[in-house]
Amino acid sequence: MPDNKILIYDSTLRDGAQGEHVSFSKDDKLRIAVKLDELGVAYIEGGWPGSNPRDFDFFREAADLKFRYAKLCAFGCTRRKDLAAADDPQLVSLLDSGAPVCTIVGKTPASQAQEVLNASPEENLAMIRESCRFLADAGREVLFDAEHFFDGWRENRAYAEQVLTAACEGGASAVTVCDTNGGLLPLEILEITREVRAFLPENIILGIHCHNDSGTAVADTIMAVRSGARLVQGTVNGIGERCGNANLCTIIPNFELKTDFKCLPPGHLAMLKDVADFVWEKANMRPDRHAPYVGESAFAHKAGLHVDAVAKNPFTFEHVRPESVGNRRRILISELSGKHSLTMKAAEFGIDLRDSRLGNAGLQELKRRERAGYEYETAEASFVVLMHKVMNLWPSYFTLEGFRVIIEKRGAEDRVVSEATVKLSVGGVSQLTAAEGDGPVNALDLALRKSLERFYPALRDVSLIDYKVRILESVNGTAAQTRVRIQSHDSTSVWDTVGVSENIIEASWIALADSVEYALFKKHIAPSNSQEGQEPS
Amino acid sequence: MPDNKILIYDSTLRDGAQGEHVSFSKDDKLRIAVKLDELGVAYIEGGWPGSNPRDFDFFREAADLKFRYAKLCAFGCTRRKDLAAADDPQLVSLLDSGAPVCTIVGKTPASQAQEVLNASPEENLAMIRESCRFLADAGREVLFDAEHFFDGWRENRAYAEQVLTAACEGGASAVTVCDTNGGLLPLEILEITREVRAFLPENIILGIHCHNDSGTAVADTIMAVRSGARLVQGTVNGIGERCGNANLCTIIPNFELKTDFKCLPPGHLAMLKDVADFVWEKANMRPDRHAPYVGESAFAHKAGLHVDAVAKNPFTFEHVRPESVGNRRRILISELSGKHSLTMKAAEFGIDLRDSRLGNAGLQELKRRERAGYEYETAEASFVVLMHKVMNLWPSYFTLEGFRVIIEKRGAEDRVVSEATVKLSVGGVSQLTAAEGDGPVNALDLALRKSLERFYPALRDVSLIDYKVRILESVNGTAAQTRVRIQSHDSTSVWDTVGVSENIIEASWIALADSVEYALFKKHIAPSNSQEGQEPS
Repeated sequence: MPDNKILIYDSTLRDGAQGEHVSFSKDDKLRIAVKLDELGVAYIEGGWPGSNPRDFDFFREAADLKFRYAKLCAFGCTRRKDLAAADDPQLVSLLDSGAPVCTIVGKTPASQAQEVLNASPEENLAMIRESCRFLADAGREVLFDAEHFFDGWRENRAYAEQVLTAACEGGASAVTVCDTNGGLLPLEILEITREVRAFLPENIILGIHCHNDSGTAVADTIMAVRSGARLVQGTVNGIGERCGNANLCTIIPNFELKTDFKCLPPGHLAMLKDVADFVWEKANMRPDRHAPYVGESAFAHKAGLHVDAVAKNPFTFEHVRPESVGNRRRILISELSGKHSLTMKAAEFGIDLRDSRLGNAGLQELKRRERAGYEYETAEASFVVLMHKVMNLWPSYFTLEGFRVIIEKRGAEDRVVSEATVKLSVGGVSQLTAAEGDGPVNALDLALRKSLERFYPALRDVSLIDYKVRILESVNGTAAQTRVRIQSHDSTSVWDTVGVSENIIEASWIALADSVEYALFKKHIAPSNSQEGQEPS
Repeated sequence: MPDNKILIYDSTLRDGAQGEHVSFSKDDKLRIAVKLDELGVAYIEGGWPGSNPRDFDFFREAADLKFRYAKLCAFGCTRRKDLAAADDPQLVSLLDSGAPVCTIVGKTPASQAQEVLNASPEENLAMIRESCRFLADAGREVLFDAEHFFDGWRENRAYAEQVLTAACEGGASAVTVCDTNGGLLPLEILEITREVRAFLPENIILGIHCHNDSGTAVADTIMAVRSGARLVQGTVNGIGERCGNANLCTIIPNFELKTDFKCLPPGHLAMLKDVADFVWEKANMRPDRHAPYVGESAFAHKAGLHVDAVAKNPFTFEHVRPESVGNRRRILISELSGKHSLTMKAAEFGIDLRDSRLGNAGLQELKRRERAGYEYETAEASFVVLMHKVMNLWPSYFTLEGFRVIIEKRGAEDRVVSEATVKLSVGGVSQLTAAEGDGPVNALDLALRKSLERFYPALRDVSLIDYKVRILESVNGTAAQTRVRIQSHDSTSVWDTVGVSENIIEASWIALADSVEYALFKKHIAPSNSQEGQEPS
C-alpha cells in the first residue's frame, strides 16, 4: 500500500446509528452500503449481528451485493470472560454473518475491564487475543478497536501497549485507537499516536476513531494521520451519539484537496455531496446546512461586498471549488442584498433583470415579501414564480376565488375527517370542487388537483413529498406569521415553494399554488383557455 | 495580563450576523450584548456603524448600557484610497458610535488590495497605518484584523509582515490574523502563528480569527493560542456565513476545562448553555442538538450498554461534567432502550417504575407509541403524562367529546377566518365552546382554554410559544403521519409536548391537550368536580 493511501472505514451504519433521532431500516442500510461502495470507501461497518436481528438480516442480504471497492465488516466485542471464543454466540454470529472482515472492540483501561466486564487485566488480554485468533483462524480479516484507548494510555501506558500487542498476537491486521468519550484535544492525539506508531510492528496498520465532544474530531483525525495512522474511522455527516463521530464528509475532502493523502478512487470526490444528502434523507434527519464542503450554505454568499469579491476571484471566500465535492455556489437573496446580487441570482434561472426598472421592481417586491416573513433562499421555485410575476411574464393558469376546509371529530372515538372545497377560475370559468383528505392540507391539495387536472393532465405526476412549518416571531405587535415550505416532485425533478400567512392553511395554500404553477411552467404548458378542459390523452 | 489569560472577542453581532438565516433586530442585539457581558467576554463587536443605520442605532443605545466585563467594539475598514482618514465618513462613524474600542479590517495580500481596492502595496500600507492612527489619536483602543492573512503570508511573507507593522505603527494594540476563507488546516496555523508571534513586538497582542470551512476552526484556534495568540475571535454557536465562525461555545470550555488557559471570570462557565440557547432563540434558528458542550444531545445516552456504563462511571462516556457548562445528562428513551433505561428516565421526573409490572406496562405502551410515530426524547412533558396514565395516576381534568374547525376564505380578496368548536366534559358535565383564532390551531387552543378556564383559572398564565410540524415517512403503505411538537410556558417554566396523527389538526389537539394537562399537574391543581366551575378570583 502506498504510504499516502488512507483506508476509509465507514461506521455510519453501526456507530452512526447510535445517534439521537437516527434509525435506519434494514433496507435503508442496504441502500446506504451500496452508495458507500460507489463512493469508494475501503471498509463498510454494517452493524453488530450479535446484538440485534435486524443487523443479522442486513448481513444475510448484503452477502448478495457485489461491492467493487469496499469490504463489509461485522462488528462485535471480545468473548465473554467465562466462555471459549468458539462457544460465544456473539462471536459465532460474526462468522455466520458471512462478512469478510470482523472488527472486534475490547477495553483498553484495566480499570474498566474490571468495572464493566469484571475481568482481571490478564483475563482482558486473553479475551482480546483469543477473540481475534478465533476469527483470524476462520479466515477473516480481523481489525481491533481499542476502546477508551487514550484514557487507558494515561492510566497505564504499559498495559495499553499490552492490549494492542494481544490483538496483534491474535492475528489482527490493524489496531484502531479510539477516543471513545471524545475528550482529547488535537496535540495530545498527535503526540500519543506518534508513540503508538513507533511501538507497533511495522506490518500492523494503525487506525483512528474519534468523537466530536470537544469539537475537534476532524482535526484529531488529521493529527493521527500525520503521526502515521492510515485507517480512518468516521461516519457520513458525522452522525453518531452525543456530538457525533468524526465527519468523513469533511475529512475526505480535507485530505484529498489539501494534502498528498488519498482516500477515494480518482474522480470520486465529486460524489460526496450526493452521498451526504442520501444519508440525511435515509436517516430522516434535517441536513446540517452549515456542514463544511457538503452543506447547502458551504458556498453561499450573502453580503454584497463578498458577492462582488467572489465574482472577481472565487478563492477570496471559497477555499476550494464547490464542484470538487459536488456542491455549488449559491448567491443568497436577503434583505441585505442589493440589485446586483438579485440580478446574479435571477440569471441562475435564466431570468434577465438587467433592465434597471425591472431590477428595481424585483428588489422592491422581494423586500416587501421578506418583511412579511417570506424566505426565498430555500424556496427557489417560489422565487422563480415571483420574479416572473414582477416582470408580467407569468402565464395565468388559474385564479383562486375562495376555499373552505372543515376538520371534524364528532365523538370521542370517531376518526377525524377533513374536507376541502376550492373555488377556482380557469380560462375565465369558475370551478367549485370538493375533496376529502387525510388532513386539511392533503384535502386542499386533492381538491386543487381535482379541479385542475381536467385542464392540465400533466399535473398527474406531481406530488408533495415534504411539508414544513415554522412559526415566526411576531413583529411590532402583529399576530405571529406561519411560514410553510413545501417540497414537491415529478418524474424529473424536485422543487421547493413557500407560503406565509397568519393562518397555516392559507400559508399552505399559497405554497401549494406556487408548486402547481411552477410544475406547469417548467413543463412548458400553456394556460388553458378551454371552457371544457382537456380530457386526459 | 497573566500569560494564561485569553481575551475572548465575540463577533456574534457582526460576523455572526452574516450567517444564512441569521437576522438580528436592534433590540435582539442589545439583549445579546447584555448577555455576553454577563458571561464575561472581554470584547463585544457590536456591528459596523458605517455600513447600516441599524448598527448605528445599536451603538447609540448601547452607550447607555453599563458593562461590567466587556468592552464594546465598533467594526470598520481602512480609509478609502482617495480620502484622508478624517474625511472618510465610514471611519468618522466609528468615533461617532461612541464605542471605546475600534476594530479596523485591512487587506493582507497586496494582490487583493490591488484587485478589490485598486490600491498599490504602498497605498494599502498607508491606508492601514493612517486609519489606525486616526482612531488611536482620538483616544480609542484600536485592534487590527488582517484579512486573508494566511493567503497573504503564503503569497509574500515580507509584505504580510509589513501589513502588521503598519497597524502597530498606527497605534493598534492587537493584531488579529484571519483565515478568512477558512481554508487552513491546524498544523499550518500552528506553524505560521508561531512565526508571527516571534516577529511581532512583545507589547502587541496577537489575535486569531478562524472560519470553519475545513471543519477545524476550533482546533485552528487552539493551535494559534498554543503558538502565542491571546485574543480569540469567534461567535456564539459558531454562527456565521458559509460553515460559520470559530464556535466560542466549544472553544471556551475546551480552554477552561482542559488546559491552564482562562477565558471567563471564575464560576461563569456554567452560564454557557444559557447564553447559547439565548442566541439560537434571538437568531430564530433551530439549535444544533449535537453541538459540543451546549447541545441537547451533548450528554445524551441512548444505547443500553452505555447507559449502564455511565451509571457506573460517568467519565466513560462523558468527557466533562455536563453541569460545568450548564448542561445536563439525558437518558434517551428509544426503541432500542430497555426497562432499565426507562426506569432511570422516569426517575428523573420522580416517577417510580421499579415495580416490574409497571415497568413492563410502561415499556410496552412507549414502544406502541413510538411505532405510531411518537418521539418523547424532546417532549418530556408528554412522557410524564403518558407514564402517569400507564400507572393510573393521572387526574381526569377533562374528557374530549369532539371538535370541529372551519377555515374559510370566501372571496379572492377576503381574509381567511378560522373558527373552532370543542366539546369537552369536565367533572361529568359537557361543555360546548367556540372561538375564532388567527389560524386553526390558535382557534382550537383558544376554544380549549375558554372552555377550561372557568374550572381552572390557573391556565390563564399558560401560553404556547412554539409549534413545529414534521411529516413522517409512511410505513407499510399507511398514510403519512404528522408529528406536532408544542412548546408552552408559564411564569415559571417551559415544557414540550407531542401529538401524532394522520391529521395535523388532530395531532395539534393531542399536543395541546397534553400541554394543558401537564400545566395543571405541575401546578398541583386538583381536577374539578364542580358543575359550575370556579369563577376567577
